[in-house]
Amino acid sequence: MLNDMEIDKLSRRLRRIKGQVEGIEKMIDDHRYCVEVLQQIGAVRAALYQVGLIMLESHSRSCVVEAIKKGKEDDAITELMGVYKSLHK
Amino acid sequence: MLNDMEIDKLSRRLRRIKGQVEGIEKMIDDHRYCVEVLQQIGAVRAALYQVGLIMLESHSRSCVVEAIKKGKEDDAITELMGVYKSLHK
Amino acid sequence: MLNDMEIDKLSRRLRRIKGQVEGIEKMIDDHRYCVEVLQQIGAVRAALYQVGLIMLESHSRSCVVEAIKKGKEDDAITELMGVYKSLHK
Amino acid sequence: MLNDMEIDKLSRRLRRIKGQVEGIEKMIDDHRYCVEVLQQIGAVRAALYQVGLIMLESHSRSCVVEAIKKGKEDDAITELMGVYKSLHK
Repeated sequence: MLNDMEIDKLSRRLRRIKGQVEGIEKMIDDHRYCVEVLQQIGAVRAALYQVGLIMLESHSRSCVVEAIKKGKEDDAITELMGVYKSLHK
Repeated sequence: MLNDMEIDKLSRRLRRIKGQVEGIEKMIDDHRYCVEVLQQIGAVRAALYQVGLIMLESHSRSCVVEAIKKGKEDDAITELMGVYKSLHK
Repeated sequence: MLNDMEIDKLSRRLRRIKGQVEGIEKMIDDHRYCVEVLQQIGAVRAALYQVGLIMLESHSRSCVVEAIKKGKEDDAITELMGVYKSLHK
Repeated sequence: MLNDMEIDKLSRRLRRIKGQVEGIEKMIDDHRYCVEVLQQIGAVRAALYQVGLIMLESHSRSCVVEAIKKGKEDDAITELMGVYKSLHK
């Protein structure tokens, strides 16, 4: 469960990422050199990964801890492993 | 060097990715369950990786081949290795 | 904390991985085609990732759950996040 | 095509990696803390990735350049893209 501060921080990061994706689109339309575009794609992937880590940590510290304290650890860990794998495609 | 068909294909993919990033922002604002958001982040990273692979292949088949045929293989391969690493973040 | 069955399963996987690493060394000594060697390196990395996922799940279901039930969730999650990042190299 | 110096360098790296894999096996048998084992698994994956990059660069500078200069660029790039993807599993 994200707190308000985390929501604000993530929203700002996502707006910046959206701008970067728009930028990549424009670079391609402008026939910019492939290598520059590829570097931007790598940067956006890395930025998204950071957003994912923030979400993963917040989820672990709130929902997972709460579920475990209620004795629902099996489902909580199964879900956590699934999310970890999906973040690493 | 991207041809027109590749540019069109990539632009459509990037517009979809931009929509997905907007969607993630909305999910966070709507306090959607972290696991659903994380799955979307993984999906967008994977979609960006595919865009990167298309760019990488197009670059390799055009700019890299051309540079090698002109005898400029050293710089072309150095640049290609740099791009490999940046896309793998 | 790994149980005996997990230890046995992981030891067998690691012995196979060790054999694959020896195999790569031999392929290189035998001047085998680079592409075949690279495919083997990719396969061993993937096999190690699976070993990591088994360890990660076992750790999460035992040590992390236990720490959280003892009220030591902060350190347990901090450590877990560190492990996520190290496995993703 | 690897030259003798590259072969020697890679063989030494692979022997170190093999030792690390043996070390992980022993850590597991000795019931060492999961987090320490996971960090080692991450380190070995990273070391293998470096071996892969050395191979990939050597292959690109030799076999790929040679194939392109002989006019066989299509197959050479198709193979290169396949190897790049397999290294990033």
